[in-house]
Amino acid sequence: MKILRINMGAAGGPKVSEEPMGQYDGLGGRALTSTIVAKEVPPLCHPLGEDNKLVIAPGLLSGTPAAISGRVSVGCKSPLTGGIKEANSGGQPSQVLAMLGYGAIVLEGKPKDNTLYKVFISKDGVKVSPDNSLRMLGNYDLVEKMKKEYGDKIACISVGQAGEMKMSAASVAFTDMELRPTRHAGRGGVGAVMGAKGVKVIVVSDAGAERRTPKNPEKFREANKKFTEGLKKHPVTGEGLPAYGTNVLTNVINEAGAYPTKNFMWGRFDTCQKISGETQAQTETARGGLATHGCHRGCVIQCSGIFVDKDGHYVTKQPEYETVWALGGNCCIDDLDVIAQLDRLCDDIGLDTIEMGATIGVAMEAGLAKFGDGQASINLLKEVGKGTPIGRILGNGAAVTGKVLGVERVPVVKGQALPAYDPRGIQGIGVTYATSTQGADHTAGYAVATNIMKVGGYVDPLKPEGQVELSRNLQIATAAIDSTGMCLFIAFAVMDQPETFQALIDLLNGFYGWNLTADDVTALGKKILKTEREFNLQAGLTAKQDRLPDFFKKEALSPHNLTFKVRDEELDQVFNW
Amino acid sequence: MKILRINMGAAGGPKVSEEPMGQYDGLGGRALTSTIVAKEVPPLCHPLGEDNKLVIAPGLLSGTPAAISGRVSVGCKSPLTGGIKEANSGGQPSQVLAMLGYGAIVLEGKPKDNTLYKVFISKDGVKVSPDNSLRMLGNYDLVEKMKKEYGDKIACISVGQAGEMKMSAASVAFTDMELRPTRHAGRGGVGAVMGAKGVKVIVVSDAGAERRTPKNPEKFREANKKFTEGLKKHPVTGEGLPAYGTNVLTNVINEAGAYPTKNFMWGRFDTCQKISGETQAQTETARGGLATHGCHRGCVIQCSGIFVDKDGHYVTKQPEYETVWALGGNCCIDDLDVIAQLDRLCDDIGLDTIEMGATIGVAMEAGLAKFGDGQASINLLKEVGKGTPIGRILGNGAAVTGKVLGVERVPVVKGQALPAYDPRGIQGIGVTYATSTQGADHTAGYAVATNIMKVGGYVDPLKPEGQVELSRNLQIATAAIDSTGMCLFIAFAVMDQPETFQALIDLLNGFYGWNLTADDVTALGKKILKTEREFNLQAGLTAKQDRLPDFFKKEALSPHNLTFKVRDEELDQVFNW
Repeated sequence: MKILRINMGAAGGPKVSEEPMGQYDGLGGRALTSTIVAKEVPPLCHPLGEDNKLVIAPGLLSGTPAAISGRVSVGCKSPLTGGIKEANSGGQPSQVLAMLGYGAIVLEGKPKDNTLYKVFISKDGVKVSPDNSLRMLGNYDLVEKMKKEYGDKIACISVGQAGEMKMSAASVAFTDMELRPTRHAGRGGVGAVMGAKGVKVIVVSDAGAERRTPKNPEKFREANKKFTEGLKKHPVTGEGLPAYGTNVLTNVINEAGAYPTKNFMWGRFDTCQKISGETQAQTETARGGLATHGCHRGCVIQCSGIFVDKDGHYVTKQPEYETVWALGGNCCIDDLDVIAQLDRLCDDIGLDTIEMGATIGVAMEAGLAKFGDGQASINLLKEVGKGTPIGRILGNGAAVTGKVLGVERVPVVKGQALPAYDPRGIQGIGVTYATSTQGADHTAGYAVATNIMKVGGYVDPLKPEGQVELSRNLQIATAAIDSTGMCLFIAFAVMDQPETFQALIDLLNGFYGWNLTADDVTALGKKILKTEREFNLQAGLTAKQDRLPDFFKKEALSPHNLTFKVRDEELDQVFNW
Repeated sequence: MKILRINMGAAGGPKVSEEPMGQYDGLGGRALTSTIVAKEVPPLCHPLGEDNKLVIAPGLLSGTPAAISGRVSVGCKSPLTGGIKEANSGGQPSQVLAMLGYGAIVLEGKPKDNTLYKVFISKDGVKVSPDNSLRMLGNYDLVEKMKKEYGDKIACISVGQAGEMKMSAASVAFTDMELRPTRHAGRGGVGAVMGAKGVKVIVVSDAGAERRTPKNPEKFREANKKFTEGLKKHPVTGEGLPAYGTNVLTNVINEAGAYPTKNFMWGRFDTCQKISGETQAQTETARGGLATHGCHRGCVIQCSGIFVDKDGHYVTKQPEYETVWALGGNCCIDDLDVIAQLDRLCDDIGLDTIEMGATIGVAMEAGLAKFGDGQASINLLKEVGKGTPIGRILGNGAAVTGKVLGVERVPVVKGQALPAYDPRGIQGIGVTYATSTQGADHTAGYAVATNIMKVGGYVDPLKPEGQVELSRNLQIATAAIDSTGMCLFIAFAVMDQPETFQALIDLLNGFYGWNLTADDVTALGKKILKTEREFNLQAGLTAKQDRLPDFFKKEALSPHNLTFKVRDEELDQVFNW
């Protein structure tokens, strides 16, 4: 494996260089992006400036025959949080990049002028070309254009209008198996950093590329079999997710009284069954879409789907639970067709659906639109794509929108919007939101699993006790998993089934010829978190930023009438291990 | 003296209470506002929330016969910087408040609904009344309305539309001797906090109020005489400021190559003589305005003036140097009439002229208007007053505007815009900008005096050596002076003339019967800074925020072709005394 560097600020135009993994050898995914960012990016640099870098890294097992190993990590200093960022995504590019032998792509520097570039990577090398005809294309049109130019044996990594305009809610899009830009490294404004580098799209071709071969093929094959079996037999990864997708959670979280409704005003949404995973799957199937589908080759969970309109025409991939919540329940919108259009718009413009849903909720609280008004939400998102003043406000996320519109109840930590689980109804996830190096992020330590689904044990979601330890352990495990290229959903099976965890370790050992133990995995997770924390400290983020907004401590959430109860001093113990 | 508290969030409507100074006895101005904020405001609270407080405090010598003692301090947690804030202002209210016996007004809590209130304070007591007819009035119309209602023996403390809309660049306006809202506690968004409290205006009446009487009248009278003589004989306070106002600096700073032009791109502005203090005074005199005028009763420097249009009609008070720079040179505008209109708009809408000039500069860099386009600037300010989306962006200051518009070169520290002195051409002021508890603020430690005017010694402005010590000493002295109610301009005479410094101390001792020494004054300054630093630390601001933006360290400024040279480790020594 090697590292590809593209210096967009080089005199005379972009300069491509390749180098061995060197000091970064043995790292992948989040471990690699965070280590490179921590070592190479000055923590106080401007996120949109020449000193920031955008690192795109496949996981350790991406490009191999390992099941469900196609996650990619995107790292940089975040324009949204001001701290370190790793946002990850499914889709095809991770597999292709790894098969082409790239451990990471590092975009560096900044073009002197406004020229927009495309990058083409194949087994024959790397080409960076100016192409201003791509300016202000949405991701869908862009990918169509790339298909015409390079054929359909490609995968694309791109930014929409939001990234070009350097908005802090801008995502980096990754194409799925159907070559649609539906998978996103959504959070933290990574798309703005790609936009600031002047790179509109990276096209990767797998023509002639081959799967990576394990050091110990037999061990690897055996581990892969056990691992796949483990995923199939766990009720979450083997049944719930395939049948209904992540949106299976709508009824679950609503029932738990932790479904943030009307900009985190209430814990239940009366009409949520209209947008539940069950209704969604039924609708998709009835209309001729797909309720069970993978986002990348090699996926054995198949939690995605294809959402089609009443006439059976493709609208967007099956919107995820967090998207349905953000653009749905949080804005009191209970129409799946409206939510699908909003999801499509976010994918096309290149926006984080969680950030945008929270942002529209704040805008609704400011009176910019009425809660429940789907058409108004669609119009607002279109403004973002056009870059009008109101669009630019919203496109920079909930914190900026709250500030500009003078709203006090803004659900963010470190400037990043809270996802679809109210920390008053699920106290464990509140600890993760508050303390994660990433800003509010459910995936950083998904305490919901243990608080609600009783995976990996049980900690009462309504009590502060035990939440710090739970979040700590999950944050450590997640950092490690985010480095493998494995989809985070493997965690359900890995946490409940020791043999599936062992199979994961054996996959790594079989592929690389390592002798990792479970302790090594924990040590890796800790090391990543420590690296990220240190970057954040140097960037000026302290324990004072490891806090939920005031109103979670002051306003009791119905139906449990609880505030967030974990004390500040306890939060400060999360990283004392 | 006593403290007036108005709890705007009390059940059943605003609740007024008065209490003795108690633990705050012996404090005034900035010492009092910062101490109350530090003791009573939770550092992590939302600046627009119920837990923030707005403290308005006359200086220790306000309301006495002491010359030039009418400055008032406004303190709170700043919506702009997220740290502690004291913004101070001239005008009449400080004298009146002190004569009425108020050491401070503290606005607390937050109304449950959107009702707007007015407060009337006279010797007969305090009345708080709802008055929604004041909604969205500019400060000029508002004051006219108050005159009709309460007569003209009043002074007003108010917010314009910007404060009502809780914009982070909103000021608190204080009326001058002509009962015009021309004096502003401008910086840090103090007006947004007043707006969040639902208070549109505080009207103070001096009918029947008497000047405060000194403990030792003879000593006080003698000290006042010497103090006044000292101000009269110093060339800055006795000649330069009365003749040309603060705008005397335009030519001086431009000549020094430290006049930030075109959003801090260059150090000189070719046509700056068109907007210099000399031209301004000449214009005012020729048109029948006034080139020499005080902002409050008892001022012996008279650095202000009255700016009239070509037909001799009042436009605004004489715009200050920093205003002329911000809305002029920084935006490449060299038309005094345009600048006067912009100044008038800022006063009327209730906006900090420095923040708005820097913001328009950033907007021009983003391409929203052309540099030099005065009419476009006027239009943009009008948008702010109307609260349109673009107006709301701009009204929240340069940092938000830069973020929303995707601009990298944003001249702010801790979110607050840099004033009219480029830190590359005057390195000492750069140390103050970077390290002040207030965000970028020239008044917090005016190194320009020593770097350029050779007041209080000389430190070469172009070299890093000696700047930290200079800024440290000035920040300490300033914190103390800001507590007296004395105009900061006394510092020129106080720094150069030991007998004038002694006269200042004798004024305090004569009035209060104290036995302060020069060391006590220094100790007071240090204590204030320490209090403010500690608040900021608890609010999450660390040494990492004590930094200038990257581009001051990277882009050399013409004509000296210098970057900012004071190293980070040196900056971190400012508060190690």
